[in-house]
Amino acid sequence: MTETRGWATHGPKQKLELFSYNDGPLGPEEVEIAVEYCGLCHSDLSIINNDWAISQYPTVPGHEAVGKIVGIGEQVKGLKIGQRVGVGWNAGSCMHCHQCMTGNNNLCAEAAPTIVGHHGGFADKVRAHWVWAIPLPDALDIAGAGPLLCGGITVFSPLLTFGVKPTDHVGVVGIGGLGHMGLKFANAWGCEVTAFTSNPAKTDEAKGFGAHRVVSSRDSGDMQKIANSLDLLIVTVNTPLDWPALLKTLKPNGRMHVVGAVLEPMPIAAFDLISGQKSVSGSPTGGPTAIATMLEFAARHHIVPQVEHFPMSKVNDALEHLASGKARYRIVLDADFV
Amino acid sequence: MTETRGWATHGPKQKLELFSYNDGPLGPEEVEIAVEYCGLCHSDLSIINNDWAISQYPTVPGHEAVGKIVGIGEQVKGLKIGQRVGVGWNAGSCMHCHQCMTGNNNLCAEAAPTIVGHHGGFADKVRAHWVWAIPLPDALDIAGAGPLLCGGITVFSPLLTFGVKPTDHVGVVGIGGLGHMGLKFANAWGCEVTAFTSNPAKTDEAKGFGAHRVVSSRDSGDMQKIANSLDLLIVTVNTPLDWPALLKTLKPNGRMHVVGAVLEPMPIAAFDLISGQKSVSGSPTGGPTAIATMLEFAARHHIVPQVEHFPMSKVNDALEHLASGKARYRIVLDADFV
Repeated sequence: MTETRGWATHGPKQKLELFSYNDGPLGPEEVEIAVEYCGLCHSDLSIINNDWAISQYPTVPGHEAVGKIVGIGEQVKGLKIGQRVGVGWNAGSCMHCHQCMTGNNNLCAEAAPTIVGHHGGFADKVRAHWVWAIPLPDALDIAGAGPLLCGGITVFSPLLTFGVKPTDHVGVVGIGGLGHMGLKFANAWGCEVTAFTSNPAKTDEAKGFGAHRVVSSRDSGDMQKIANSLDLLIVTVNTPLDWPALLKTLKPNGRMHVVGAVLEPMPIAAFDLISGQKSVSGSPTGGPTAIATMLEFAARHHIVPQVEHFPMSKVNDALEHLASGKARYRIVLDADFV
Repeated sequence: MTETRGWATHGPKQKLELFSYNDGPLGPEEVEIAVEYCGLCHSDLSIINNDWAISQYPTVPGHEAVGKIVGIGEQVKGLKIGQRVGVGWNAGSCMHCHQCMTGNNNLCAEAAPTIVGHHGGFADKVRAHWVWAIPLPDALDIAGAGPLLCGGITVFSPLLTFGVKPTDHVGVVGIGGLGHMGLKFANAWGCEVTAFTSNPAKTDEAKGFGAHRVVSSRDSGDMQKIANSLDLLIVTVNTPLDWPALLKTLKPNGRMHVVGAVLEPMPIAAFDLISGQKSVSGSPTGGPTAIATMLEFAARHHIVPQVEHFPMSKVNDALEHLASGKARYRIVLDADFV
C-alpha cells in the first residue's frame, strides 16, 4: 500500500489541488498503472462542474490514462507487470450480466466510471479492473494515444456497431475533440466523409483530418445541396442543432447517431423518420474489445489525435484552455510528479 | 377502355359518392385488377380529410385491395390474367433508383401512393404497376387479407428489416388496427410479446392476439416493472406518448420503432439514447418483396386480421364506424357493384 498523488477537486467548479490518498489493498481483479500521460476530455470538465449531478468529491479527474502496469491482483487475466495499457471512461463493470458477457461491458448497468466514486488519471497511479486496462499496440504513438481511450472510441464505436461499409457516406457534425477523430476514423474506414461545422475557419483543417467536403451547418443552401446523401451522421456537439435539417441530409435507411451529450431534448418528427426509414440513436464510449479493435485499427492507419501537451502540474491552465474552447483539438497532460 | 366506378370524395371531409371515371389505355407496365375486397385503413380517413396536405380531389380511397387481374400491359412481368393479387399503399415507383433496384421501392422518392393522384380500391377496378400487384398465396383467407397489404406490412416490416430474432422481446404500443396485427406477427415470429394499451378492457383480446403480457401504458408502476426488458418496441398509435417512459422499457441496444404518424415532434433526450445505445426509428409500409414475404409468412402461420365486413356501398357508414374508434379491429369492404 503506497500513497497515490493526484490533482483533485473538492467541490463543483473548484480548481484542482494536489491531493494524496490511499486506495487500500489492490483488489484481486485489479491492476495498478503508473500514469505516463492522461488525456483531458470535456467530460472531465462536466464531472468537475457536476453538470450531470453524478459527481462525488473529492475527485481526481482523468479518464484517458496511459501507462505501465505496476501492480496486479491475483485473478487478473492476460496482463503482466510492465505492460503498457490504457484506461478510458470506465474502470469496472459487473462481469456477469448479459452485456458484460457479450463484450458490451460499457452498457452494463453497474459500469463504474473511472472518475465517479473512483480516482482517475490526473495522478501518478490509477487503478482499473483488468478488463478495462486495454493493452496498447506497440506501433501506437503513446504520447498521443490517451484521447483515443474515451473520445476516440466514442466516435469509432458507431462505425463498428452498425456495420458501416467503406462504400458508405458518413458525416461528422462538429470539428472538435471528438469530431476531428471521427473524420480520421471515417476516412480510414474507406468512407466518403463530410464535415459539418459552424466555423468556416476550420475548413482546411477538417480536410486535413480526412473530410472530402466541408459543409457549413448554418448555410441552408449548403445543407440543401447535400440532402439525401448520407448513410450515417455522427453528431459530436453538445448544443441544440437544427435536427430536422440534419435528418434531411440522410439517405433512406440513414442513421443520425448522437454522441454529444445535448441536454435539451431533440424534437424529432415521426414523419421525418417514417418517410425514409431513418433512425436516431446514441452510444456511450465502447466496450473493452471494441477499444482494443479501435486501437489496433488506429495503429495500423497511423491515426493519432491532434493534441496539445501540458505538464500535469499545469492541469488548471489546461482546464481553462479547454473551457474557453481554444483546445486544438485535444489536450494531453504529461505526468510530472517528482 | 371501360369505365371504372368507385366511391370518391370531391373535397376534404366530404362523404364519398358513387363516381365514374376513365383512366385511359392501360400502361405497358400496368395491371388492372377487378376488386373483390378492399380494407379500410386509417390513412384513407387522413387522405379524405387532407390531414397530411397531400390529397388530390376527386379521390377514390382504398389501398388494401384484393382481386383478380383482368387487364395486363405488354411489359408486365410474372403475372397473368385471372391471378389473384393485392395492392397496398403504393401503386408505382420509379424502378431505376437505388431503392427500387434493391427491393426498397417503398423508399423510392417517386413512390406513388395508390390514393394520391391515382384512384384506389373503393372501386370495381384498380390499377397498379406490376411490381406493386403482389400475388396472394392460395392458402390465405382472401376475404380477410386486404388489411395485410398496408396495416400488416407496416408492423411486419420492422421484424424483417432489423433482424429481429425469435429470442427477442417485442412490445407493441396501441392495440388497434395495426397493433393487433403486430401482436400476431411478433408472436408467430417466436418472440416474447408485450402489449401496451391505455384501455384495460382490451387485455383479454390482446392476449388472444398473441400477447404474453399486457401493460397499462398509463400505470407508472406497470411501466417501471417492465423497464429494461424489450429489444424492440413498435409504436402504432398516432397520439403523443410518454416517450421517455417508453424508452426506459428498452434493454441496451433496444429500438423504439414508430409506424404511427404522430404529428407532434417527439422530445427525445440524447442521454436516453446514449446511456443504453438505443435507437428511435420509423418506416413506411414495405417494399414488394417484403410484402410477398409477409403474405407467405401470414399464410403459413394462419395470420389474418380480425375484421368487420361492410358492403362497399355502405362505405360512408364504415368510415363513420372507423372515425368513431369503434372498429374491432379492422374493416374490409366487400365490392358490391351491380
